[in-house]
Amino acid sequence: MKGSQVTIKDIAKALGVSASTVSRALKDHPDISPETKKAVTELAEKLNYQPNSIALSLRQKKSNTIGVIIPELVHFFFSTVINGIEDVAYAAGYSVIVSQSNESYEREVVDTKALFNNRVDGILASVSRETKNYDHFQSLVNRGIPMVFYDRICSAVNCSQVIIDDFDAGYQSTKHLIDQGYKRIAHISGPLSLLLSAQRLEGYKKALEDHGLPVVEELIVEETESKDERVAKELTNKLLDLPTPPDAIFANNDVAALGAMLVIKERGLKIPDNIGVVGFSNWRFTSLTEPALTTIDQPGFQMGQEAARLLIKEIEAKEDEVIEPETVVLKTSLIVRKSSVRN
Amino acid sequence: MKGSQVTIKDIAKALGVSASTVSRALKDHPDISPETKKAVTELAEKLNYQPNSIALSLRQKKSNTIGVIIPELVHFFFSTVINGIEDVAYAAGYSVIVSQSNESYEREVVDTKALFNNRVDGILASVSRETKNYDHFQSLVNRGIPMVFYDRICSAVNCSQVIIDDFDAGYQSTKHLIDQGYKRIAHISGPLSLLLSAQRLEGYKKALEDHGLPVVEELIVEETESKDERVAKELTNKLLDLPTPPDAIFANNDVAALGAMLVIKERGLKIPDNIGVVGFSNWRFTSLTEPALTTIDQPGFQMGQEAARLLIKEIEAKEDEVIEPETVVLKTSLIVRKSSVRN
Repeated sequence: MKGSQVTIKDIAKALGVSASTVSRALKDHPDISPETKKAVTELAEKLNYQPNSIALSLRQKKSNTIGVIIPELVHFFFSTVINGIEDVAYAAGYSVIVSQSNESYEREVVDTKALFNNRVDGILASVSRETKNYDHFQSLVNRGIPMVFYDRICSAVNCSQVIIDDFDAGYQSTKHLIDQGYKRIAHISGPLSLLLSAQRLEGYKKALEDHGLPVVEELIVEETESKDERVAKELTNKLLDLPTPPDAIFANNDVAALGAMLVIKERGLKIPDNIGVVGFSNWRFTSLTEPALTTIDQPGFQMGQEAARLLIKEIEAKEDEVIEPETVVLKTSLIVRKSSVRN
Repeated sequence: MKGSQVTIKDIAKALGVSASTVSRALKDHPDISPETKKAVTELAEKLNYQPNSIALSLRQKKSNTIGVIIPELVHFFFSTVINGIEDVAYAAGYSVIVSQSNESYEREVVDTKALFNNRVDGILASVSRETKNYDHFQSLVNRGIPMVFYDRICSAVNCSQVIIDDFDAGYQSTKHLIDQGYKRIAHISGPLSLLLSAQRLEGYKKALEDHGLPVVEELIVEETESKDERVAKELTNKLLDLPTPPDAIFANNDVAALGAMLVIKERGLKIPDNIGVVGFSNWRFTSLTEPALTTIDQPGFQMGQEAARLLIKEIEAKEDEVIEPETVVLKTSLIVRKSSVRN
């Protein structure tokens, strides 16, 4: 991206003038002739050059601050990612400031602008559940702000990214339930507009297929929006009201899994005997619920470390160095507890 | 505080020159004579005037950003405080950036500087467990940055603050255990360098005294540093190894309470029959543990709202308006669940 961004040098070369002339022309300096100003501004416009004073000052003076956009701070996984980011950033002499989108597209747009205006040297972002338009991120990249996406990435913007192997995690969770003898496994998915939710669903389907079990559409329910266990409770009630209810539930996150557990217990059904449950994220305290929850451990701390490393590499790249976007994929592990193990 | 800070006007008045002359003298402007420059800079130094270009730009141009210093993002209570801050801030046209001290004094110092350098309009802070020196906060106040403390306040710096009634919360938790028939109640306190920990301990002692129970020093243990349940587990083992062990534990936070519960269960003791447990904070999922945990519900969202309101009032005060620091005290409520109720 850095390579493809138009610089003052490009404009200077194209017009056969010095970079300093272009810079002064763009600042409407009295020493520069009106003709040169006109030529420079017209070409700058044509090439989509962004003459932003803050971006300029950024290049001149580093703030040694990394901005992080996070969907939800109360989400245990995300708070561990921040700890990983800080671990690498502070060691490299950067401080970290965090902005929460609270799963709102509108707020995410405000946050990106605020971080830009607060002169951060680079931004780490994970997109909100609501986000379907990525112009606010593209605009940062166009202005030359180094960016790396983590966990909830966006393929529309060409940046480095750190993800977990969501397909594999979905596959392993489902395979584990099959291995325990469950045959009618439901999936409470996250919003399928998020790549990671779609990947987990694919992993779930593939595991069923590989083990000769049918993919039953009515057993796949989508939790399009949720900040607590309420939606998951509704969806679980819906699943348990089916003519042939599921004998296991693989939930896209631990909050949903715990919501499902509440409903199952309320109905007098036993976990794991009547219904097995697997969550996703290994939230704090999931080992202390009754029964303890089987879940996918996501390496949040490591994800934060990797994302910060990639970003700092880009921030500290030399002016003319072209950084090729990288994708780092981290492996998860299944933590088997009582909620999915029938005796 | 605003009133006590030295301004350009004060220096101008003392020297009998215009404020504009002082301002230009401080910027080493060629129009000002060397004598005037010398007089201005000497007096500025004597009066501890802070000629900070960023502070100046701050006054000239608002960033419409509020900075928040938070001890630990993974702490459920603190993440709800941020949600409350954002609720008020975004509605008033401010974005919010958060910096985590991770309970480290050193990092808290770096964070305050980073937020200042990132030109926030004001700062909301809760001090780390480690912090015993408050110069970094005082320095912000001296530079005219509006500040409000929340939850973990510091009495050394004269700012508005939003707290909960920690004494009352400690009292009510202990009284509840006494009402349930527990007679030998231990307390796992937080670090007593934090005012709130000291207040909760005082409430605990007063409740015992009011109900004719002795304050037993060996039943009071201090969790000086802790980010998970490990220290609480050690302290609980120590308490249960006493010649006369406690029949109840009131813990300073839910993580400590859950750590205590793990140890109690490991030893084959029953909660609440053998030992009652009360936590503090009403973390997510504490209602789902076995048994469900009795705890103090802290109004985190409301605390964030109040703190943001006080800060924005101060940010938007007119130049010469003196804002008197306010203290807002919020009430907590005891959430009674199974862990402390003997049948």
